Amino acid sequence: MSVIDELATELARLPGIGQKTATRLVYHLLKQPAAALERLARAIHAVGERVRPCTECGNLTELDPCAICADRRRDAGMVCVVEEASEIGAIERSGEYRGMYHVLGGHLSPLDGIGPDDLRIASLLRRVGNGSGIREVILATNPSMEGEVTATYLRGALAGAGVRVTRIAQGLPVGGDLEYADGVTIARALAARRDMPG
Amino acid sequence: MSVIDELATELARLPGIGQKTATRLVYHLLKQPAAALERLARAIHAVGERVRPCTECGNLTELDPCAICADRRRDAGMVCVVEEASEIGAIERSGEYRGMYHVLGGHLSPLDGIGPDDLRIASLLRRVGNGSGIREVILATNPSMEGEVTATYLRGALAGAGVRVTRIAQGLPVGGDLEYADGVTIARALAARRDMPG
Repeated sequence: MSVIDELATELARLPGIGQKTATRLVYHLLKQPAAALERLARAIHAVGERVRPCTECGNLTELDPCAICADRRRDAGMVCVVEEASEIGAIERSGEYRGMYHVLGGHLSPLDGIGPDDLRIASLLRRVGNGSGIREVILATNPSMEGEVTATYLRGALAGAGVRVTRIAQGLPVGGDLEYADGVTIARALAARRDMPG
Repeated sequence: MSVIDELATELARLPGIGQKTATRLVYHLLKQPAAALERLARAIHAVGERVRPCTECGNLTELDPCAICADRRRDAGMVCVVEEASEIGAIERSGEYRGMYHVLGGHLSPLDGIGPDDLRIASLLRRVGNGSGIREVILATNPSMEGEVTATYLRGALAGAGVRVTRIAQGLPVGGDLEYADGVTIARALAARRDMPG
């Protein structure tokens, strides 16, 4: 297999990129200066080498703890629970939140065999538990069926932890994906968050 | 800028990939095993390092001459002229052509300041000229206005070269792009090629 076909095959593995688009991307890349290809190859290499989950919150980061966990100006009394690290950026861009995060690494999905032990739930309970000063846990799992199930499970698991547990408001289109929501919608959803009856 | 943002920025430079898609691709990549990222980075690096235009025909290749120019079983008496190297693959997949190629590197476009000297036209005339045994030049520039203008120009430039000059048939949808045509359409267009009056 030629290196052109090899690269097309690798690119076609990416979500939303078919074989023809992959081939087109390769020929586009071949028209770029060599330095541009090196930048791209190096950026991919660097991401693979240097990005790891934050041991505190699960955010993907080059630093440990991540820049958000290490930021003393943020409110360490609030933890916003999200499914994926990629959703932290969407919430940060809303400009409405200055607390901490906790990344679950997915949602509960019994049909796919994903239970509580497959998500970063134990570490969330540990974080909230031991005199951490956490006052509120905002459940910002996606407004999908699995996200709701996960939020309900977490609500139960956090009962008795002595913290306020809230659910991000359904200002987000139901069935949608948090990552694609705009900042205004996310800001409204955060502002309208409601206490979750335990 | 974090390595995550750097990679997203690089990916967003690719055609058809916006900032959100780029970010999504980065997080997708971060979920892959390290070996998969290395394969992708290495494939990009290899393409940048090893792929060059064939000095004979302009095809993009790791070998020089390219595998097509070096293949003695092909008919060296026919040359199919295309705008871009990426179009050779489309014609090869049609299974209808066993001759050689010549890549122009674009089409004539006076409005963009692209004239005959900016394309690999001189090397085409040289190839056809000196007792090469070439009997026929098939003009397979795209069925667009610029492709037609380029074909007409080449028809004139090849007058008196003592070769048959044909134009790939307009079985292709006018205004379309050769690269996206299916093999059957390309095969039909090749079979129905017509002599081009000089």
